Parts: sequence; structure tokens; C-alpha cells
Amino acid sequence: METKFLVDQIKKKRSFLSIGLDTDIDKIPKHLLDTEDPIFRFNQQIIDETHDLAISYKINTAFYEVYGWKGWQSMQKTFDYIKTNYPEQFLIADAKRGDIGNTSLKYAAAFFDDLQADAITVAPYMGEDSVSPFLSYQNKHVILLALTSNSGAADLQLLKVDDKPLYEQVINKSLQWTNSQNLMYVIGATQPEHFKRIRALAPHHFFLVPGIGAQGGDLDAVCRNGMNDDIGLIINSSRGIIYASAGNDFAKAARESAKAIQAKMALYLSTC
Amino acid sequence: METKFLVDQIKKKRSFLSIGLDTDIDKIPKHLLDTEDPIFRFNQQIIDETHDLAISYKINTAFYEVYGWKGWQSMQKTFDYIKTNYPEQFLIADAKRGDIGNTSLKYAAAFFDDLQADAITVAPYMGEDSVSPFLSYQNKHVILLALTSNSGAADLQLLKVDDKPLYEQVINKSLQWTNSQNLMYVIGATQPEHFKRIRALAPHHFFLVPGIGAQGGDLDAVCRNGMNDDIGLIINSSRGIIYASAGNDFAKAARESAKAIQAKMALYLSTC
Repeated sequence: METKFLVDQIKKKRSFLSIGLDTDIDKIPKHLLDTEDPIFRFNQQIIDETHDLAISYKINTAFYEVYGWKGWQSMQKTFDYIKTNYPEQFLIADAKRGDIGNTSLKYAAAFFDDLQADAITVAPYMGEDSVSPFLSYQNKHVILLALTSNSGAADLQLLKVDDKPLYEQVINKSLQWTNSQNLMYVIGATQPEHFKRIRALAPHHFFLVPGIGAQGGDLDAVCRNGMNDDIGLIINSSRGIIYASAGNDFAKAARESAKAIQAKMALYLSTC
Repeated sequence: METKFLVDQIKKKRSFLSIGLDTDIDKIPKHLLDTEDPIFRFNQQIIDETHDLAISYKINTAFYEVYGWKGWQSMQKTFDYIKTNYPEQFLIADAKRGDIGNTSLKYAAAFFDDLQADAITVAPYMGEDSVSPFLSYQNKHVILLALTSNSGAADLQLLKVDDKPLYEQVINKSLQWTNSQNLMYVIGATQPEHFKRIRALAPHHFFLVPGIGAQGGDLDAVCRNGMNDDIGLIINSSRGIIYASAGNDFAKAARESAKAIQAKMALYLSTC
């Protein structure tokens, strides 16, 4: 997907919401457990009820791998379902991959060719040649981990290198890599004090922002400090939306929860 | 698997060789393509021919994910085959995972519970809470990326933090995490000048050493600088062994290639 198309979708839907499909069989309504593929069935209903409020779905691979090849099959069906029925959605594989070049090539093929994701999250620790196989795809996007939403972010990402936090090195270096226009960055919503600084480093790039909802991030602070002329934000919520209710009304409840976030986003969009 | 058992296997087999099953359908002998699951069939024959020369198999998840759920199924069958027939092998999932705590928990369950791996490679960028769910398993091992074998290793891993390369921070910090006795480190064979220093930092921990063979690493330098009283090294070769021949004799050729490395290892073991 071209970045311009994504920006147009945001303006049209008045939403920059990504919904995270961290689907856990222990948390989905019991009546779905009798169906052939409860995980997929759950996702399908969530997607059908929320697609007009969101511009992106984020599929967290861990929640599918835990069920082995059947889980991967549920994931594949979810990607296919979105691509077929809602091709305007920006499809993120939240996979946090990254390996030596010849291995990253295989990951890129797995997620971009086979699953048809528009974007994949990538871990930067192994450097340029671990990321470049993903960057070489046209109209596909690498979302590089920069400053994450968890407490462990402080362990390495905030260490000082030449008086600047390591995550700045990640951003500065990666902006010099070939096809860096295909880059986005993961910046946790729990890190509002860093947003202004990061926006100055990468004024034109999109940020994928997890940590709203269950992790306690502040939507208002993120929008005030992180928006650019093309909006430049995709804000993700997973558990807060998909588990809004554990009952038969789960999809409707997810819609209500997504609607509440989208309504706030519409306000921010009208002022920018 | 207990570390003591691994050390005993190394002494008994006079080998600290891990064979990397980076199995690529474009590189396996053509006659296997008519079988139901060519990837698994290839692995099975490689394993049967080499198990007495190796103490470990390393399964690189990218090479299976690229074939979707069927690839994951081939991977699962490979894990099962080794666990059932050669339970003495140290089974490494080379997956380079790492995410926020509740997601890493799912990855740990996927690889330790479902696939029954003994170890998984983990990326350190997200810090302690991204690694601790893996460390909490008893007799399972986290192999944390420290200094990798690829050129991109220089981009972040060698940046100076308080006058020390970043990878030293990774090692020093992780040695303080709960259950750090379940840790091993990835140290590339292409980095011989760092081995002595790293061994001084982590005198009692195992290092998984990729980069011998196709990537040009030097076995001799690694052994001289990296061994400890418990050997402390698992040296991996993938392409150099499994693709030693593209003909019908591929498994025998893989055995010869593995035998040549094991014979050198036996010499190093007799002098330590």
C-alpha cells in the first residue's frame, strides 16, 4: 500500500486507529469454542463490526504460533479475509523479526508475499543488512522498533551513546539506509516525554504507537506531540477493544470501544 | 535439558557441533520434491545421517514460515522427529523473538511447550521483561543475541556506551536478571577479536556460535579464545553441511562435511 493511500484513508474515515488482533482462546466467548476455527471466527466478527472505524489491523504472530500450524492457518485466514473483504486496511504483521540477510529475505517473503501484509515490525539489533531485505519491497513498510512501550525499554533503548539515547541512533542510522522512505517506527504511547524529540528526528515518517488502553498510554499527549502534516500516527489498541466484553455481544462491545477512540481521533483531526 | 547433560553429551560424542536446518526447497535434491513433505523428508535424512556427530540441531523458523502453515507443520514434524528419535539432542529454535511480556509469554509457550525446543534465540532490544518469560522455564535456555556474525552487527552492537560496546551492556545486564543461569549468548564466529573479552564477561555461560562455513568464521580462533572448563561452545554450521551435495548422495555428503568439523572439534577437546 502506498503511504498516500493510507493518509487518504485516515482523512476519509477520520481515524488513525489500528486494532490489534491478539486473539487468545482463553479470552474469547465460550460459544465460539464449538466452531471449527474459533480464533478465526472471533477475528472475523471483530473485523466485520469495526472495519469502518479503523484504518489498520495489527496481527500479533505470537498469539497464533502458540497454537502451532493450526494457529498459523488461523492467521493466514485472517490476513486473507481482510485482504479480500477490506483491501483498504493497512495490514500489519506484528512479528518483530530480524536476522542475517539470507534469513531476513525468507521472513520478508513469508510476510509480504505469502501473507500479503503491508507492513511488518522489525527489531533493529542486528543492523542494516538484517532490515534491508524488508525495505527492498516497493509499497511495503518496515516498522522498526525504536522506543517501545514496555518497562524493559529503559534497559537498552535509553542508554546513552554520544549523549543521545540509543533509540535516536536507531532512527538516525536507519534514515540513511536505502529505501528509508519505506520505514515507520514503533514508539510506545507510554513514552510521551520523548515524542516531540522523536518527531523532530523523523518529521515525515509514520509512527506505530502501541500502549493505549491496557498499557496506560495517553492518547492526548501522543497526538499533541506526535502528529505531522500527514497525521503520521497509527495508534493501536488490542485488548481494550477486542475483549471489551466476554459475552455474546463481544463484537458489538468491541465496536463501541473502537468508536469511543475514533471519536476522539476525529476531534484531533479536525484541529490539525 | 539440563546444562550438565549437554556438557556430558559433548564429552561423550567429542563434538560441540550444531547443525542448522535452514532447509530451502530450491536447494534440496529434486527427487525429494515428489514426496508428500519434501522439507521434512530432507531434514529426516540429514538428521539420521548426522546425529552421532552433532549434539544439537538448530531450526531456523524463517525457512519454514516462508511456506505458511504447511511450513510450520514441516517444522513441527522436524522437532517431533528429533525429540522422539534422538532425545539427547539439544534442540534450538532459532527464532530471534522478543516482545512485551504478555506476548513473549505466548512465544515461550509456542516454542518451549508446543514445539518442545530446549532453547530459543531471543533479541535483547526490548529489555528484561521481554526476555524474562522465556527465562522462567526450568531446564530451558534463552540464547540472547549479543554480538552477531553479520556486517550489520557494527551498526548498534559495537556502539560505545560508557566506553564499552553495547553488546557488553547486553551481557552485563542480562547476567543480573532472574534465572540468568538459563542464559546462553549468540556470539558470531566472524568476531574472533572479541571472544576473549566476552569469555571474561561471562566465564560460565555457553555461547552459540554461528558463522562457521558459508559466513567465513574461523573455528580455530573461536576455540582458542572461547572455550571454558565446560567447553562452553556450541558451534553451528548450516549451509556448509546440509547443502554439501545437491545430488542423491546429499545425506552422506552432509555426514562427511559434519565429520570433518567434528574431527577438528575432537582435537580441541583432547587438549582442554
